[in-house]
Amino acid sequence: MIYRLFIKYLRKYYLRLKTSLKWILFSVLSGILIGLAGTAFYFCMNYASDLRGAFPWLIFLLPAGGLAIVGLYHLFQNQKDPGTNLVLSAVHSGDHIPIRMAPLIFASTVLTHLFGGSAGREGAALQIGGSLGNGIGRLFHFNEKEQKVLIMCGMSAAFSAVFGTPLAAAVFSMEVISVGIMHYSAILPCVISSLIAHQIASCFGAVGEHFIIQSIPDFALIPALKISLLAVLCAVISILFCVMLHGFSDLFRKLFQNGYVRILTGGFIVLALTLLIGSQDYNGTGIPFIEQCFSGTVPPYAFLLKMILTAVTLAAGYKGGEIVPSFFVGAAFGCFFGNVIGLSPSLCAAAGMGAVFCGVTNSPITSLLICFELFGFEGMPYYLLSIALSYVLSGYYGLYQSQKIIYSKYKNQYINRKTR
Amino acid sequence: MIYRLFIKYLRKYYLRLKTSLKWILFSVLSGILIGLAGTAFYFCMNYASDLRGAFPWLIFLLPAGGLAIVGLYHLFQNQKDPGTNLVLSAVHSGDHIPIRMAPLIFASTVLTHLFGGSAGREGAALQIGGSLGNGIGRLFHFNEKEQKVLIMCGMSAAFSAVFGTPLAAAVFSMEVISVGIMHYSAILPCVISSLIAHQIASCFGAVGEHFIIQSIPDFALIPALKISLLAVLCAVISILFCVMLHGFSDLFRKLFQNGYVRILTGGFIVLALTLLIGSQDYNGTGIPFIEQCFSGTVPPYAFLLKMILTAVTLAAGYKGGEIVPSFFVGAAFGCFFGNVIGLSPSLCAAAGMGAVFCGVTNSPITSLLICFELFGFEGMPYYLLSIALSYVLSGYYGLYQSQKIIYSKYKNQYINRKTR
Repeated sequence: MIYRLFIKYLRKYYLRLKTSLKWILFSVLSGILIGLAGTAFYFCMNYASDLRGAFPWLIFLLPAGGLAIVGLYHLFQNQKDPGTNLVLSAVHSGDHIPIRMAPLIFASTVLTHLFGGSAGREGAALQIGGSLGNGIGRLFHFNEKEQKVLIMCGMSAAFSAVFGTPLAAAVFSMEVISVGIMHYSAILPCVISSLIAHQIASCFGAVGEHFIIQSIPDFALIPALKISLLAVLCAVISILFCVMLHGFSDLFRKLFQNGYVRILTGGFIVLALTLLIGSQDYNGTGIPFIEQCFSGTVPPYAFLLKMILTAVTLAAGYKGGEIVPSFFVGAAFGCFFGNVIGLSPSLCAAAGMGAVFCGVTNSPITSLLICFELFGFEGMPYYLLSIALSYVLSGYYGLYQSQKIIYSKYKNQYINRKTR
Repeated sequence: MIYRLFIKYLRKYYLRLKTSLKWILFSVLSGILIGLAGTAFYFCMNYASDLRGAFPWLIFLLPAGGLAIVGLYHLFQNQKDPGTNLVLSAVHSGDHIPIRMAPLIFASTVLTHLFGGSAGREGAALQIGGSLGNGIGRLFHFNEKEQKVLIMCGMSAAFSAVFGTPLAAAVFSMEVISVGIMHYSAILPCVISSLIAHQIASCFGAVGEHFIIQSIPDFALIPALKISLLAVLCAVISILFCVMLHGFSDLFRKLFQNGYVRILTGGFIVLALTLLIGSQDYNGTGIPFIEQCFSGTVPPYAFLLKMILTAVTLAAGYKGGEIVPSFFVGAAFGCFFGNVIGLSPSLCAAAGMGAVFCGVTNSPITSLLICFELFGFEGMPYYLLSIALSYVLSGYYGLYQSQKIIYSKYKNQYINRKTR
């Protein structure tokens, strides 16, 4: 009897170990391949940004660049591109991600940044990773459930290579798809591929973002109340940003049904706004401007300008992510708020980034982890408080309309609804 | 039309804001009250440990102390005390936690430590917090769903005050109850009460644990492989520890149906083992020994001795938690492993603690966060890797048999089973 039990036991463990070994093998493979793709993307993006820095007149080619992007998607018959939404719905609903998504989003995001569209790169990284992950899954005939794990694994690898935050990258793809559910069955693949992709990117000389906070007061009632007020405002800003992104997108689609006309018009609007502003601070990812938020003052309207420029850029049909723009918005508003209310502006910029990121992605754990990776661990209680408040007060809005919120934010109840 | 929409919108936000304000108010209240109770518990525990340090002969009174504990539970008619299991099942199944659980576990855990039983204090903190949280909920006539949030909020507050890790405390109660589901509806109450309880404990002079890692090599293939091997072994140790805890408990219940006889026998066994070992390193929480793991070498069998002593102590009916003992086991095995394999023993002790904690609680996010709070952020990639591996390889075993694992660890699938 005991002998048979022992054999049964061993067999079960052998099966689990086999499953785990298979996942380790494929996450190493994904980490290497997608890490390399992510690293290439990172350097192309940097090169595009540097080129525009050296030749600011490239912004005048933005409308023409837009035509090239639409042409590219037209050529590859992917006009109705749902972007990052497809990556999310592939995991919770089993949709299929075409492999052509990876090269398309790669090239079009680089074009967008080369000519000065205002957008991020993490959304693009998620698409590259998700699409390649799904491709690996199909290539090796994985079943549908396993392909989902590979999609998450790919998302983590690409995010990690591009942004240099392996911890947040590993957790983000488990957390963001269905808020309230942690897809822990993907934990080992996501962690391994994320760590490997980060190592590869580092080997090639990619440097993760890191922002230095000038001063962090001891955690006490008054600074905590100030940070709470900031978080409440950041929650409102997150809602506004989501509404603007989706609203502009709907409006542009309604007004200009032809993709070429739409991107041409949008391109001219971004160009005109840039000329009106008189600098290219708000174009591209805007990371130099985010750095400025950690060392000095910024105009009070900076966050709003970035929101408008990003909403127009993406509504027009340019490609790129929404995550770095939300960092920009949070940092710019936080820095301004800190200067007004008399609390370390760089700490407020950091807490603002965490709060807006959480507000638009509904992913509090990732928001926390990304704060630790970007700013260090010291300001932890401030990030924790601002992220919790922003999570609760930002309602059911989100960047990705295919994201699901499984449990109510306000009571212990199953709701399973999509974000707005 | 737009006016009516706007009013509807405002009303909804007013309701959500009202809900949030109510939670803020009650989490401040819980944070203060339960923070005070946790602080009192912290100091009583320290006093009991110091007293035993000064008068080592107190260990001879362990069997008598056991009788007092059983007598206490008998007096308050709580003989069939399910312990921390009840706190977990109160949240996922709506069980009722009696308010008398708080003073009973408080006194009996202090007695256990005074006389040298081997146990932790976090499980006790969870019971104190959960029971007081539920009490506050009943006092103010909260409905059942809201009471669950207050239980989690209380767990966070007490854990935070007792162990000085507000971040892990806030997340633990959301994560541990139903693995795979994050009870984010409790995020704001848990965060606020945890931060407040920690502030209160600090004001009274409580000092959170912190361990210093001597050296952390750059993250690269060889040390990553060594840490992976450690994690695999720690996963096996976690399973063994859970099997021992539950097995000894079942055995003692079967052999000694009378609670007084059971605790008397167990007390004599612990006493005999302590005399055989010749030191009291393994009695109480064993935190001085954990500190030793971070600065030198430990015997290879140390982890096993702690497992046996803890399993006997708890099976006999002494009170206390299992979390600090699992830290002890992980640190002792990690330190030994590091010395054998030639990787920073203090780093291995830290990674081992994270891995064993994750293996027995099935809570990877909390395990990560507690590593950051106890050891700092620098060794992050090692903790991430060892925790992910231990999560996957530790199977469906756990400290708390009422814990639910909602999604399979091996594939993207709903399973909703209890741990073993």
